[in-house]
Amino acid sequence: MGGDYAPVETVRGAIQALRSVNAELLLVGDSGLVEAELAKFDISGLSIKVVPSEGRIGDDEHPVQAMRQKPRASVVVATHLVKEGHADVMVSMGSTGASMASAVLSLGLMEGLERPCLGGPFLGLAPNTVLVDIGSNLDCRPGLLLSFAVLGATFAHTYMGIENPRIGLLSVGAEVVKGNRQVQESYQLFQESHLNFVGNVEGMDFFTNKADVIIADGFVGNILVKFTEGMGGALADFVRQQLPDSMDRAVVDRLADDLWETTNRPRTVGGGPLFGVNAPVILGHGSCRANGVEGAVRTAVRYVNVGLLDIMRQELAAINNYAAGRAERTSDGGN
Amino acid sequence: MGGDYAPVETVRGAIQALRSVNAELLLVGDSGLVEAELAKFDISGLSIKVVPSEGRIGDDEHPVQAMRQKPRASVVVATHLVKEGHADVMVSMGSTGASMASAVLSLGLMEGLERPCLGGPFLGLAPNTVLVDIGSNLDCRPGLLLSFAVLGATFAHTYMGIENPRIGLLSVGAEVVKGNRQVQESYQLFQESHLNFVGNVEGMDFFTNKADVIIADGFVGNILVKFTEGMGGALADFVRQQLPDSMDRAVVDRLADDLWETTNRPRTVGGGPLFGVNAPVILGHGSCRANGVEGAVRTAVRYVNVGLLDIMRQELAAINNYAAGRAERTSDGGN
Repeated sequence: MGGDYAPVETVRGAIQALRSVNAELLLVGDSGLVEAELAKFDISGLSIKVVPSEGRIGDDEHPVQAMRQKPRASVVVATHLVKEGHADVMVSMGSTGASMASAVLSLGLMEGLERPCLGGPFLGLAPNTVLVDIGSNLDCRPGLLLSFAVLGATFAHTYMGIENPRIGLLSVGAEVVKGNRQVQESYQLFQESHLNFVGNVEGMDFFTNKADVIIADGFVGNILVKFTEGMGGALADFVRQQLPDSMDRAVVDRLADDLWETTNRPRTVGGGPLFGVNAPVILGHGSCRANGVEGAVRTAVRYVNVGLLDIMRQELAAINNYAAGRAERTSDGGN
Repeated sequence: MGGDYAPVETVRGAIQALRSVNAELLLVGDSGLVEAELAKFDISGLSIKVVPSEGRIGDDEHPVQAMRQKPRASVVVATHLVKEGHADVMVSMGSTGASMASAVLSLGLMEGLERPCLGGPFLGLAPNTVLVDIGSNLDCRPGLLLSFAVLGATFAHTYMGIENPRIGLLSVGAEVVKGNRQVQESYQLFQESHLNFVGNVEGMDFFTNKADVIIADGFVGNILVKFTEGMGGALADFVRQQLPDSMDRAVVDRLADDLWETTNRPRTVGGGPLFGVNAPVILGHGSCRANGVEGAVRTAVRYVNVGLLDIMRQELAAINNYAAGRAERTSDGGN
């Protein structure tokens, strides 16, 4: 029921996805509304069930309070389906805050992780560069950034097929001394780990192929993502004004649209995984139409099929062992 | 002598500037080289003197060490001309680190300021939006950010002609609670000051005209500036590939070039003031050719003519009084 165009585009997108992937679909929502949408399609041969829920949690609500007040809201019911083993993965197109809160509270975090994070390619111009965190972790200690690196690298390798992903720390210069306190403290921790750490990278390195996975705290990540989204709109307007009136308008519109996509996640991607919770959860972008919803569902199916969650759990355990051992050595050294 | 194309483009650009502004030019550099360049132009009617120096400080040198080893380097000699009153303003196209170090050590900082900063419009798409700091202040306390705001707002008002500039703190959401620790701690300090503070702004607000002056620490500022510069090159390549071969190549090249400029400072700007030192200093971009150098010199002349330095000093004193009074009230309240 979440997202700007639910249930119309959500149902349409989910059905589109189901036609090309091998999966069973549980649509969680107000039964009357959802069934009315379903009735518009020929769904013979598809496995679809409607699971009733009551109400939805909006972007303007406090997530945890709203979960208490609306224990039957669609995102809460959907999370419980995963928790109780009735579903393998949840896709939510609704409020990111509510979806994260519901996922963390119901499903729990992977062992040794303080907070979940969001990551993935965020830029059409750099479709194979993963940025973590683009979520809500604003002040991060080095150990948390290291967890982000493990989760991002595992995603890049297992989901995106990048061999031995190169990990960079986003900073203001390549040298180890270049960076704020957070980066300087993290550098050594990254350096001594078994990760394929290539050192600090800079703002321009989203375009230079120096690293496959770029790690920043969610403050910087969020600013970059919103900055590029804003820039996409401004560029599209700019190109419409700059190209001569004599030009074929279809070419101009196409270019303006392409420029928008260079600074945004492709419209067909639709959503990305919430890293670090103990079950697969895909957070969709609320502004998606059917093609984006289809993309989010396809991401969800692939996420489960490649077994990403178990691999992430193993990798996280390994890095936690490293960090714990390092902390012990450091404190021994201090005696 | 600094910059990628010195002294050829530097001399050419300075002469170009001198033809349209009322100023006397002191060219600091290796006399033989500089005079050989000067000889290429008809400079009758222009006031130009060559002040000899020996050597230059490169980007790869440690600024303070290099200043000791090369006390006659061009940037050191030029700074001394300003310090001793023989020049009203210095323009350096060379190493930013060396120019800043020389300026701070010779000229000193304005009273009550911990560190100098760099600011100005950095984006062709948002030519009237000032970002401070784009310099090298990586971990900033609230009081320093407040100083940046005063210096940026004074520049926006006095130099750019923006009435009562609106100041925003760069963050991840508009509400006061949205932000990392640094932003949350700064918000109240900004709010209670006499500045025209409009609250938090987000990454997309570089394109929404919510604020004229956007304040961030130099870590975030540097990442944004380098990110957009990298994006400019990537966009120019992208548009060349996307537009059909049938199109007029001149139109395509023009558009690619325009797109590069949307994400960079205009090539003709060439440099910006170093805020907070006790005399006017303009730091140029090392990659500038003559038009950029001309722009940097014109900026320098205007900077002096509008009397920006004295106004900044007064505004800084006023905000320091406010901050000191507030600190006192806070500590009284704690008793």
